[in-house]
Amino acid sequence: MSFPDRVSSERIWARYWIETAWPVDVAAAVLAGEQSAGTFVRVAGETDELRAAHGAVVENIALLDTVGTPSLPCAGTPKGVTSWQRAHVEISWPLANMGTSLANLLATVAGNLFELKQFSGLRLLDVALPPAFLDRYQGPQFGVAGTRRLTGVDHRPLVGTIIKPSVGLTPQATADAVDKLAEGGIDFIKDDELQADGPHCPIAERTREVMQVINKHADRTGRKVMFAFNITGEIDEMLQRHDAVEAAGGTCVMVSLHSIGLPALAALRRHTRLAIHGHRNGWGLYSRSPFIGISYIAWQKFYRLAGVDHLHVNGLANKFCEPDESVIASARECAKPMFDVPGRGCEVMPVFASGQTVRQAPDTFAALGSTDLIFAAGGGIMAHPGGIAAGVRAIQQAWEAALTGTPLDAYAAQRHELREALGAFA
Amino acid sequence: MSFPDRVSSERIWARYWIETAWPVDVAAAVLAGEQSAGTFVRVAGETDELRAAHGAVVENIALLDTVGTPSLPCAGTPKGVTSWQRAHVEISWPLANMGTSLANLLATVAGNLFELKQFSGLRLLDVALPPAFLDRYQGPQFGVAGTRRLTGVDHRPLVGTIIKPSVGLTPQATADAVDKLAEGGIDFIKDDELQADGPHCPIAERTREVMQVINKHADRTGRKVMFAFNITGEIDEMLQRHDAVEAAGGTCVMVSLHSIGLPALAALRRHTRLAIHGHRNGWGLYSRSPFIGISYIAWQKFYRLAGVDHLHVNGLANKFCEPDESVIASARECAKPMFDVPGRGCEVMPVFASGQTVRQAPDTFAALGSTDLIFAAGGGIMAHPGGIAAGVRAIQQAWEAALTGTPLDAYAAQRHELREALGAFA
Repeated sequence: MSFPDRVSSERIWARYWIETAWPVDVAAAVLAGEQSAGTFVRVAGETDELRAAHGAVVENIALLDTVGTPSLPCAGTPKGVTSWQRAHVEISWPLANMGTSLANLLATVAGNLFELKQFSGLRLLDVALPPAFLDRYQGPQFGVAGTRRLTGVDHRPLVGTIIKPSVGLTPQATADAVDKLAEGGIDFIKDDELQADGPHCPIAERTREVMQVINKHADRTGRKVMFAFNITGEIDEMLQRHDAVEAAGGTCVMVSLHSIGLPALAALRRHTRLAIHGHRNGWGLYSRSPFIGISYIAWQKFYRLAGVDHLHVNGLANKFCEPDESVIASARECAKPMFDVPGRGCEVMPVFASGQTVRQAPDTFAALGSTDLIFAAGGGIMAHPGGIAAGVRAIQQAWEAALTGTPLDAYAAQRHELREALGAFA
Repeated sequence: MSFPDRVSSERIWARYWIETAWPVDVAAAVLAGEQSAGTFVRVAGETDELRAAHGAVVENIALLDTVGTPSLPCAGTPKGVTSWQRAHVEISWPLANMGTSLANLLATVAGNLFELKQFSGLRLLDVALPPAFLDRYQGPQFGVAGTRRLTGVDHRPLVGTIIKPSVGLTPQATADAVDKLAEGGIDFIKDDELQADGPHCPIAERTREVMQVINKHADRTGRKVMFAFNITGEIDEMLQRHDAVEAAGGTCVMVSLHSIGLPALAALRRHTRLAIHGHRNGWGLYSRSPFIGISYIAWQKFYRLAGVDHLHVNGLANKFCEPDESVIASARECAKPMFDVPGRGCEVMPVFASGQTVRQAPDTFAALGSTDLIFAAGGGIMAHPGGIAAGVRAIQQAWEAALTGTPLDAYAAQRHELREALGAFA
C-alpha cells in the first residue's frame, strides 16, 4: 500500500531521493516552499494562516551517504562546498491545493522542483494519494481478470508477440502474420509502437484485415486473440480508431503513454469499451540516470489511475540496459493495490517484452511467482527457424516447463519447437 | 533553420549526442534499426525492399571525445571495455513511417532508444521536420505580434508577474492583487502553475473576479492587461475553462505542457481563440543530466508546432541551476523559424521568469538583443518595499535603463521605485 502509515484523506504525499550542498532540512524546506505557497522571498499576502492551510510540509528526512562531488552540474552551488548529502525526504501537500487532478498533481510533485539549485540530484520515488482521486478517475476497466476473461486464458501467462518488422508491412501482410500466429495458438498480439497510421499501413485497413482473421480463428477455437492496435495520435483520432476496432470485433487498443499524456489517456478511458494497453516508450528519460527522474513505482500510479489496463515493465535479460531486479520490482508494483478501497486498487497486468525468448520463461516465473502477466516475444517468435506457429508453440512449451519446474533442456527433449528455439536463441 | 542542408519533404531528421562502448557506427545502426524496421534478430518479412523503404538511415557521424568510465550505468555493457566514445549522430526516417503525427513522431525519435544498452549516454539534440506537418498542426495563433496586439505593447518587453503566494489566495484576494498590478501599469500577469482549481480558489470564480478588475482598468487605459489563467486539467475542463475566460473578456490561457501532453495541446489549439501560455515545469527531467534527455532546441519544436504562443525559458541569474548562456540560447531558439515557409515559421514569445528582479533587465537585453519577450517577476514585484505598484514601476524603469543603455544605479538616482528595488533585491 501507500507508504505513509498515516495516509490521510486530506493530503497527498511524495517521497524523494535528494542530493544537496545545503543542509538537508533547508533544501527540503525550499522544495516544500517552492511547490506550495512560497517563492524566493516572502511576499505580502503570505500570511501565517495561508501557510498553515496551503504550505507543503516536510514530514520526514532520512539521511543517506555523502559524496565529494555533485552528481549533476548546477550553476548555483555555493562556493567552498566539499560535501554533498544524500537523503530520502517525504513531503505532504493539502489535497485542496491542486484538487483531485492528475495533471495538476504532476505539476506539484514533479514540476519545477527538478531544476532547483538546491539539488545536485533529485528523483521522485513514490506518491500516496487519498482515495478521493477515485471519484474523478476510473482506473483500469479490465486489469488482470478482465484481460483473462476477454482472452479465455487462465492459470498461465498470456503468450504474446509484437508484429515485426516493426513498421513497413502492409495491412494484408500484417493479417497474414496474425493468421499464422493465431493458427499457432497465440493469446495476444500487439502493433509495434512505431507502427502508427502511415500510408503503407493505414490503421483503418489494418484493423479490418487483422480482425477478419482473428474473428475467423475465434469462430474456430471459441477464444479470441487479443490484438492491441496502436491508436496513438490526436484525441479525436484515438476515439475514432477505438470505435473502428470495437466495430470490427477487437478487444484492445494500445497507446504510447508519454506521447499522449494523462488527460488524453483519461479521455480515452472515459470513452473506451476495450482494454487499454499502455506502452512506456521514452521511459528511459526518467529511469536511466540515478540522479534525476521518476521511479517506476511513482510513475505507474499516475497511468493506472488514469485508466490503463496493461503496463510494460521490460523483461529479464532484455535488450535494454535495465537490470533484472528492477524489472521484477516493476512487475510486482503493477499488482499492488494503490488504494485501500476494496475492488478499486487499480491493479494492472504487467507486460514483459524486449528481446524475450523461450530462455526467459523459467527465470521470469521464478522471480515473479505469478502467472498474471503478458509475456511478449517479437523476434523470439517471428525468427523461430520453424516459422511463426513453431515460435508460438516453443514459448508455450517454455512456460509449461517453467510452471511444472522442469528444466528447459529436459522439457525440450520430446518437443522439437522448444528444442529448435533453444538452438536459435542461445 | 533546420539542421540538415538537404532537408527533404519526405524525411524527418534527428540529431543525437551519444556515448557508447560499441563502435559508433554499430551503435548508431542499432538505434536506427530499433526505431524503424528492425528488431534484435532479422525476421521473416523484413525484406531488402522493406528495409529500403522504411529503415531509418544513419546520415552522419561526428566523433567527439572518449571517456574511461560510462556516464550512465548500464546492465548490458560488454566485459573488458575500457573506453566509451562520444559522438554526434544524425538519423533520418521516411515520413511515411509515422506520418505527420507529433505523438507518433515522439515515439520514433524519443521512444525506446533511451533505454538501449548500446548507450551509456544519449540526448536528443534537434529535429528537422518536413513542412507537411503544417498541414496537420496549426502552430502558434498569436506569437509575438499577436501578443503585442492583444496587450498594446510595442518596442519594449512585456512586463509581467506571477501571482504570489503561488497558491492559497481566494479569488477576491487574487483580484485585489491584480487591481494593484493593473494600477501600477503591468502588461501581463499569470497564475502560478501550482494554482489550479482547488476549493479555496475555483477557476470559474477566479476568472470572473480577475477579469472584472482587468476590464475596469482597460476601460480606463484603453489597454487590456493579459492574464494567463492556468486552465491545466482534463481536456473537457480545459476547453470549458477557456470558454469561460473568453466570455469574461480574457485574452490568454496557461497550460503546464508536461502535465497535459501534445494531443491535449493540439486539441486546445484547434479550439482556442486566446493566446496559449506554455509552462515548462518538469523540464528539469529532460535537462539536468548532461547524459540523458532532450535539448530545449528539440523539445520546443514539438510544442510550437502543436500551437503554443509563449514558452518559458527560465531567466538570467535564476533560482534554478541553469546557466545564463543556456537561458539565452533557449530564448533565441523561440524566435527562429522552424519551417522555411513564409508566415509559418511557428515563432513564439519567450518568457523570462524565476527569481527575476530589476537587476536582470540590463543583462537580459544585452544578451538577447531583442525586446520580444515577456519579463516576469513574481517576488521581484510583489515583495517591493513600496508595494505592488511600486514593484511594477521599478521593473519598467529597469527596462527603460536597459533600452537607453543607462546603468541601473544612475537611472535610479531620480526614480525612487527603482532605487528601493535595488536596495531590496541586492
